[in-house]
Amino acid sequence: MVLHPFDEAIALHADGPDVFAGHCGAAYWNMVGPFGGVSAATALRAVLQHPALLGEPLALTVNYAAALTQGPFRVLVRAARTNRSTQHWTVELLQTDTAGVTASMLTATVVTAVRRTTWNGSDIAPPPVPPPSSFARSTAPAAVEWFNRYEVRTVAGGIPAIGQELPISEPGGQASLTQLWMRDDPLRDLDHCSLAALADVFYPRIFLRRGQRVPVGTVSMTVYFHVGRAVLCGCGSGFVLGQARAQVYGDGFFDQTAQLWSESGLALATSSQIVYFKD
Amino acid sequence: MVLHPFDEAIALHADGPDVFAGHCGAAYWNMVGPFGGVSAATALRAVLQHPALLGEPLALTVNYAAALTQGPFRVLVRAARTNRSTQHWTVELLQTDTAGVTASMLTATVVTAVRRTTWNGSDIAPPPVPPPSSFARSTAPAAVEWFNRYEVRTVAGGIPAIGQELPISEPGGQASLTQLWMRDDPLRDLDHCSLAALADVFYPRIFLRRGQRVPVGTVSMTVYFHVGRAVLCGCGSGFVLGQARAQVYGDGFFDQTAQLWSESGLALATSSQIVYFKD
Repeated sequence: MVLHPFDEAIALHADGPDVFAGHCGAAYWNMVGPFGGVSAATALRAVLQHPALLGEPLALTVNYAAALTQGPFRVLVRAARTNRSTQHWTVELLQTDTAGVTASMLTATVVTAVRRTTWNGSDIAPPPVPPPSSFARSTAPAAVEWFNRYEVRTVAGGIPAIGQELPISEPGGQASLTQLWMRDDPLRDLDHCSLAALADVFYPRIFLRRGQRVPVGTVSMTVYFHVGRAVLCGCGSGFVLGQARAQVYGDGFFDQTAQLWSESGLALATSSQIVYFKD
Repeated sequence: MVLHPFDEAIALHADGPDVFAGHCGAAYWNMVGPFGGVSAATALRAVLQHPALLGEPLALTVNYAAALTQGPFRVLVRAARTNRSTQHWTVELLQTDTAGVTASMLTATVVTAVRRTTWNGSDIAPPPVPPPSSFARSTAPAAVEWFNRYEVRTVAGGIPAIGQELPISEPGGQASLTQLWMRDDPLRDLDHCSLAALADVFYPRIFLRRGQRVPVGTVSMTVYFHVGRAVLCGCGSGFVLGQARAQVYGDGFFDQTAQLWSESGLALATSSQIVYFKD
């Protein structure tokens, strides 16, 4: 059986108690390392594959310490605490270089929880945008292989052309807003791992805000999952509507908030991240 | 010398390599454990007190695994990776119960970074609200001792009276918005630890959204720091303007986003958290 490239990228096999082994390949390669969304999904995958798992993903924070190289890596996963309905995990991804030195490439924490039916509601309505078929598919920037693994249809706030100077609108406005329809290519049914990766699909907000491209790298990303497996299963391989904007830029870093909805308008996940930039 | 109650609450002394000892007291007591903001500040404090520290706080994620009891605790702190200008930390807070069993009460990750001057900007303007003197000081709810350690002046979205049914406005609106002026009481100069705690001062959004009080507990909180020590130092003991709103509620959890500005309108920190609720 041929695995979907996403499943191949996040595949792990047990390599001892609390240890998994994986392999970083080329399918989701970014410019100097793998797409961060896949690394986040791999950290989550390790927890979901652990025999002591309780419940479903609730919160994921991933800190990117260094760019992985293509080749093998190990993931250390530990249940720091198991309560009646929640479980607290720590995750660390390690890689050994050609000199034989093992170093931490990523740290993460995950909270899993048993979901139960309660009152539900939302203070964020999905933006009223036309359906995916109304927009052309966005093409991958040169040398950004991972972007070919997603069908992205840009609704608003597309990546500016190099050298394009954008008018910078007033603070508090839509200066850094991007809205995208997106899904895996080839098609793949949505799950928590692919949803975590989708939260990282947005290109860096500073490109849009400043109308120019500068070196960037995500330092830390947090994803909150608002639905369980059953709801995600019901989404099939449908599009996800994502929206991202920046809040504050300064001292070489900016942050981003993001929201993800199903094609039918269900809030699936909310996310934030902080990103290094050079100017 | 008498320590400020906040400094006493987060005080740690070295207890071996990568280990600190602290004590949980009554000054910031919440209903069934200490105020989560102080626990977050304690995790950050451990990193800042570590002899190997590089740079200043950039990102903090704290996962609340269980309620601390009053008494001694230990904090394990490890620099998982040190780069040229960033450093990745893992933190775990442990407490031993009366039966002699040691358990994890909190896990955290911290990224510290050397700040440098770059282009800066903001896509979030501070809301144009009247100065702190325009608002009365909010009084602590019964049995919430920690709230007495803060001078909070509620601008909008105050805590609803018990049994008060609020109109629930349409999604995407201001249904769960609270705005507060706040500072330590007694006065204390702002630093990254007190700023982390301020990010957790907002009462649970679901109280406001539903117009009723239900059992709640923060599960995970992330804070991004947008300024360094020098800027915080310049804020002295001035008020901080904080704003919080919820995004999504369901399956027993809701999330909150928050922004914190100095009295002069500088964006100091942005934050998110996910909170357990019972209904």
